[in-house]
Amino acid sequence: MNVNNKSFANISMAVIRRLPKYHRYLKELLDKEIYRISSKELSRLIGFTASQIRQDLNCFGGFGQQGYGYNVEELYNEIGKILGLDKTYKLIIIGAGNLGQAIANYTSFEKSGFELLALFDINPKLIGMKIRDIPFRDVDELEQFTLDNHVDIAVVCTPKEFAQGIVDKLNEKNVKGIWNFAPTDLKVPKDIIVENVHLSESLFTLSYLLNEREIENNKQE
Amino acid sequence: MNVNNKSFANISMAVIRRLPKYHRYLKELLDKEIYRISSKELSRLIGFTASQIRQDLNCFGGFGQQGYGYNVEELYNEIGKILGLDKTYKLIIIGAGNLGQAIANYTSFEKSGFELLALFDINPKLIGMKIRDIPFRDVDELEQFTLDNHVDIAVVCTPKEFAQGIVDKLNEKNVKGIWNFAPTDLKVPKDIIVENVHLSESLFTLSYLLNEREIENNKQE
Repeated sequence: MNVNNKSFANISMAVIRRLPKYHRYLKELLDKEIYRISSKELSRLIGFTASQIRQDLNCFGGFGQQGYGYNVEELYNEIGKILGLDKTYKLIIIGAGNLGQAIANYTSFEKSGFELLALFDINPKLIGMKIRDIPFRDVDELEQFTLDNHVDIAVVCTPKEFAQGIVDKLNEKNVKGIWNFAPTDLKVPKDIIVENVHLSESLFTLSYLLNEREIENNKQE
Repeated sequence: MNVNNKSFANISMAVIRRLPKYHRYLKELLDKEIYRISSKELSRLIGFTASQIRQDLNCFGGFGQQGYGYNVEELYNEIGKILGLDKTYKLIIIGAGNLGQAIANYTSFEKSGFELLALFDINPKLIGMKIRDIPFRDVDELEQFTLDNHVDIAVVCTPKEFAQGIVDKLNEKNVKGIWNFAPTDLKVPKDIIVENVHLSESLFTLSYLLNEREIENNKQE
């Protein structure tokens, strides 16, 4: 089966968002030299039900064989292709404070094909420095940089109040996507894809769950 | 209507995960001194459909009145209560590198009731220093700290390979929840709630979307 250049536009985003987790677990299996796994075993490992797993993987034509289970390496490679991880992506980070630097230091992203070109910041103390040989540049150069360079992903790590202004400076022909960590929803030209990481949404979900458990515990007492 | 101590255990997690976004937009409306809004206007703002909004908010008994719309302040307060944001939470951060420090510096979390008690790290250069008056402590003190102190949320920002070992040291009676940024799934006692932020899952979703768009564009050419 060849998934190259095959579109999966009809797959629900719920399924797509589960694929990176499959990918991560399959990598761990390969690292342990496990090459074959049943949906039942995969279920025990990942925590999705076996039927969920079969359903998810059937969306892509199915990789498993009755009585044999899944070929771990094949499944890993095919999911990688679906996620576009057989390609490479050029990144810039805008806002090189602690969060921006943390992301710049994740070498695992680079191993997955995400190549960081530069970090941009307004802090004159940072400009001219390097992180893993990648330069910090003045945010004033950002507009020209995205005119001159193809950028697949601009990672926005600025404070909320600067995020929209920064994004408005990006050249829309050369910047394809935005990975946004600023706690705001960005307005972008329709050809730019935005993926948000809103940390407070995750934290407030946790506070909901803690509070909910507390209420349940109090009831039982 | 009083949602205090009322349990919402039957609400789907999909709805719960949308509530922080409502909460954020309602706060912005209040900051702009807008006190009343229809589901239609709210829809234009947030990007969910008006029917989705009515459905979501009906889960909680409904806050809107036909012909009047929503009372922004009431809705904001009630959603805050549902999310447990009328309470306070004691946090510790484990792993005080760039990511841990970034989280420690988000003063907006503190304003929402999340009080940071300490950061823990293995780096001797950090220990004894402070960030916003909050001390960096030696990770060797972690076990004793969670024996002596009630901790609502332990934020795990260590590298993947240390995360499970660290979590195993937390006192399960005193630690209620874990906000996990390590790219691994943690095994915890059943009474501890884990909320994960797996950054690579978000990044790989973005690469999927970029790749998908590329394939669609090539087809059209």
